[in-house]
Amino acid sequence: MNLHRTPIQVESAVQHVMQHKPAVTVEEIGLKQSHGRILAEDIQATHAIPPFPKSPYDGFAISAADTAKASREAPVTFLVTERVGAGQRASRPLRSGEAVRIMTGAEIPEGATCVAMFEICQTIERADKTYMTIKRKMENGQNIIGKGSETEEGEVLVLSGTRINPGVQALLATFGYANVRVYRKPRVGVYATGTELLDVDQPLEPGKIRNSNAYMVMAQIERSGGEPVYLGKLADDFDTCYRAVKNSLSEVDILITTGGVSVGDYDLMPDIYEKLGAEVLFNKIAMRPGSVTTVASLDKQLLFGLSGNPSACYVGFELYTHPFIQSYLGSTNPYHKVINAKLGSDFPKPNPFTRFVRGFIAYEQGNVRVYPAGMDKSAVVTSLARSNVLTVLSGGTRGYKQGDDVYAILLEDNEGAREFHL
Amino acid sequence: MNLHRTPIQVESAVQHVMQHKPAVTVEEIGLKQSHGRILAEDIQATHAIPPFPKSPYDGFAISAADTAKASREAPVTFLVTERVGAGQRASRPLRSGEAVRIMTGAEIPEGATCVAMFEICQTIERADKTYMTIKRKMENGQNIIGKGSETEEGEVLVLSGTRINPGVQALLATFGYANVRVYRKPRVGVYATGTELLDVDQPLEPGKIRNSNAYMVMAQIERSGGEPVYLGKLADDFDTCYRAVKNSLSEVDILITTGGVSVGDYDLMPDIYEKLGAEVLFNKIAMRPGSVTTVASLDKQLLFGLSGNPSACYVGFELYTHPFIQSYLGSTNPYHKVINAKLGSDFPKPNPFTRFVRGFIAYEQGNVRVYPAGMDKSAVVTSLARSNVLTVLSGGTRGYKQGDDVYAILLEDNEGAREFHL
Repeated sequence: MNLHRTPIQVESAVQHVMQHKPAVTVEEIGLKQSHGRILAEDIQATHAIPPFPKSPYDGFAISAADTAKASREAPVTFLVTERVGAGQRASRPLRSGEAVRIMTGAEIPEGATCVAMFEICQTIERADKTYMTIKRKMENGQNIIGKGSETEEGEVLVLSGTRINPGVQALLATFGYANVRVYRKPRVGVYATGTELLDVDQPLEPGKIRNSNAYMVMAQIERSGGEPVYLGKLADDFDTCYRAVKNSLSEVDILITTGGVSVGDYDLMPDIYEKLGAEVLFNKIAMRPGSVTTVASLDKQLLFGLSGNPSACYVGFELYTHPFIQSYLGSTNPYHKVINAKLGSDFPKPNPFTRFVRGFIAYEQGNVRVYPAGMDKSAVVTSLARSNVLTVLSGGTRGYKQGDDVYAILLEDNEGAREFHL
Repeated sequence: MNLHRTPIQVESAVQHVMQHKPAVTVEEIGLKQSHGRILAEDIQATHAIPPFPKSPYDGFAISAADTAKASREAPVTFLVTERVGAGQRASRPLRSGEAVRIMTGAEIPEGATCVAMFEICQTIERADKTYMTIKRKMENGQNIIGKGSETEEGEVLVLSGTRINPGVQALLATFGYANVRVYRKPRVGVYATGTELLDVDQPLEPGKIRNSNAYMVMAQIERSGGEPVYLGKLADDFDTCYRAVKNSLSEVDILITTGGVSVGDYDLMPDIYEKLGAEVLFNKIAMRPGSVTTVASLDKQLLFGLSGNPSACYVGFELYTHPFIQSYLGSTNPYHKVINAKLGSDFPKPNPFTRFVRGFIAYEQGNVRVYPAGMDKSAVVTSLARSNVLTVLSGGTRGYKQGDDVYAILLEDNEGAREFHL
């Protein structure tokens, strides 16, 4: 076992991971199932929007020329020939002197050049016919939403790699995408290693704790858009772990292990990577927690060796595994968004290495504040329940004060970012 | 049909909806399926954390008293009796003069009162035995994480009504919640009304458009935590619509219709509510778009009549239906979070009524800006794809300028809010 480890910087570690380009695959799914997935095709306008000139109001479609001499003193009268609702069409072109009663969203009849709203018209019933009078001049095109005025046919509206939200789903429906091509979710396997681990349904035993990391990581995988595959827990025995890891690789696209990456007597992952013939991208990062986070590659697969410490495991996942899952999903914005924020409370610990602290964001009078958690006992636990950012506390300081400028990594922002810089 | 409508204020309309308390039901699901669901039980610490005193480092567990006279000049020597990894226990209590080699996370052996890290110890092999020497005095309790130092048994850690995120899922696993009680998702039915509507898999026809609102709303329902049920589209025919609406009510918890709530010739929903005997909570709101949004109640069910106009439909859903779905989910934070922000670009339209404009949030040097969309043709479409806020432009102004203070309603923030005020 090679105990010599050279720490690399966080950004550099992220680059090492993201240089690996997974072989993404595409699947076609029903539109109704597509919310939250990543588009694997551009959405193109298959027709103009609106596809025909339409009325934005309820009113009468007429020829503006017929109103040229209309005034208070000399109202112009039209014969109302028919009524057209949305989805209906006039039975024939409009002639001079005729009006069509038209509803919001309905197609403008041929020959009509404007719509007079009900409010400015008077209706008269006479000898079984309906007439309409108007006292003002109308302009050509008035109250008509022209064909293609919102979107022209052929325009590319949303690019491949975009996450499908309600607005995108509306566009897909508009243009007849009953099925949509999206990137297949990567299957992300999770093994928790450690003889101390009990499974969630086992009673507590002396010296043991329940495997919580695997469940935490599975929720993180889901949040990142992957499909979590729980592989179980492994005792700290080389042969058992080696066989389990080796056999699982054909079952999953990405493999995560928690624990066993440190340099203790029972930290087996470095030897397992070696025996597998995997190339270790890095095994030491200049960060806290999670400095022992190790990533290895084997035949285009990435193996993420996350720490067994819960905070380190959480942070390692979000910094390194999250963008790789997003890369598998073909996202154009694979990284978490990093924003500037003010620190909401003191963080008095000296900080030799850059620290990533779970916490939450607060919006105060237009400013963004982040509150790192873990300052007192109870906060550790409640922070777990509330965390939606990682606060970045750069290394080389004796501590941070409330109001200091820091970066915050947004964990639950769906937009993501094209790049990652600290 | 009663055409007289009295507009009410947005906040008042929200209150009318939220005064209806749905009969929430609880279901038990597997922990692995629980991400994103709302807890229907408090999470209580079923044991202390850690459940036993443990070592935060790799080192030697010894009695601090044995080191009382240790110094550079007079190192103290211990017999190393055994090795204890995480998940293992020492075979017998430690005696004076003995040391146990202990790994991170392992239980402190009985009789040991501190842990000396490897870095400050020297190991010597002699006559088939292992000895360890130390040159400094250790304190009682040094490098020991006490039982219950993070959480005491019985503490309530997360309250019912909280959304399950990765941190909460970790806590559930820690305390043995193999299954967890969550609130059942409400089934939210969606009918789109309008003779002009084609379904997504139908070819375009003259005068007609595809039903996009229903698909948009279904994605919104999913984002809000509900279970969307697509009921189809309905032509503007009273008997058809009445029967369809009436029959669907036993199939769903909440019913949404889009279209038909205005006062045009084909706006049938007001008459349908009347014939059903539903009580109309409001049918006119002092807002744009979506002023005709109508909500009616019938035997504890709510019927949301959203506008057929896409923007109005979207806004009506987020303001009124979203919190009601969250109420069904037992959330303690049912409302979207409203924050202060600066307007990122001019919005020159005069604003007689409070306007809710879709747009997106940007974080600029610690400040929050919102960019309303729809200022130019192309923005309408791209904004649909990017929207994650509703910008609130209060009524009674001639327009807004870049930098003006506005409220922004966060649509994709998972934390939500306990209250809703503008």
